[in-house]
Amino acid sequence: METWDAIRARRNVRDYLDRPISDEDLDRILEAGWRSPSSRNEQPWAFVAVTDREQLRELSKVWRGAGHVATSAATVALIEPEAESPEHAASIRYDLGQATLSMMVAAADRGIGSCHSSVADQDLARTILGHPERHRCALLVSFGYPAGGPLRPIIHPDRRPMDEVVHRGRW
Amino acid sequence: METWDAIRARRNVRDYLDRPISDEDLDRILEAGWRSPSSRNEQPWAFVAVTDREQLRELSKVWRGAGHVATSAATVALIEPEAESPEHAASIRYDLGQATLSMMVAAADRGIGSCHSSVADQDLARTILGHPERHRCALLVSFGYPAGGPLRPIIHPDRRPMDEVVHRGRW
Repeated sequence: METWDAIRARRNVRDYLDRPISDEDLDRILEAGWRSPSSRNEQPWAFVAVTDREQLRELSKVWRGAGHVATSAATVALIEPEAESPEHAASIRYDLGQATLSMMVAAADRGIGSCHSSVADQDLARTILGHPERHRCALLVSFGYPAGGPLRPIIHPDRRPMDEVVHRGRW
Repeated sequence: METWDAIRARRNVRDYLDRPISDEDLDRILEAGWRSPSSRNEQPWAFVAVTDREQLRELSKVWRGAGHVATSAATVALIEPEAESPEHAASIRYDLGQATLSMMVAAADRGIGSCHSSVADQDLARTILGHPERHRCALLVSFGYPAGGPLRPIIHPDRRPMDEVVHRGRW
């Protein structure tokens, strides 16, 4: 798909077809995250890719808003190291945001929808994912083919007016 | 450009040709940021796009590592609201990270390189950019055509080994 179409077709998808993502496509999504930039190239992340249905069901219990994880074809857990300061924590999250969008656009390019989830129950997340101490699961990013029809470029996304958001030269 | 090529061609570029970015391409880069997802669709950002050479030179003084801003064709300042808590601050930065990568991939698709910069001198940034109180300039993202030759998909990016970063099922 053309890049601009993939960027415009990406949207949050919570209802998925019962259709697996091919290993090739999942590898590409993960590679997109792996490639993304980070502060001083520190790559402050690990990605745990979950595709087992029973494990996905368990993982969907880490937050009240994570129900879509249970029916996703794959969910990537974003694992972050313990931060040294609030500034460091914010910097890590910024980099995780970059990795997330990279994976989401790579997915949209293959017709695959995606959705974020917070993680409230860190103990449950650790039991399921097995990440070591001094790490936590920052977010989940789920992937799957949209049940509501294929991804298409969105002409009028639900966003604040452009001229409120974009300033030229000065605010 | 194909999406996967744009994702693989994106790289940090600090040396730019003396060549402007067309209004159409800059608008597309900004639209890519505007479209990006955010927690509860709050869109906790404003983007100030700077293209005036003298203003870019001034802006390059906000951090010792921001020299490339001076010679960029355009720099987009990411303005964030005051956070209510450290968790909120991290969430805002995560969303800014998503917007950043979206803009960078849209730029790479048009052959345009990009580079981040921190902002140390918030007072100077405010004088130059004019954003209101209770907002700060979180980061700068610069854009321009690479002096070192066109962007091409990078086959072996400088990253940690994939199997250190990506885990399957469990860490």
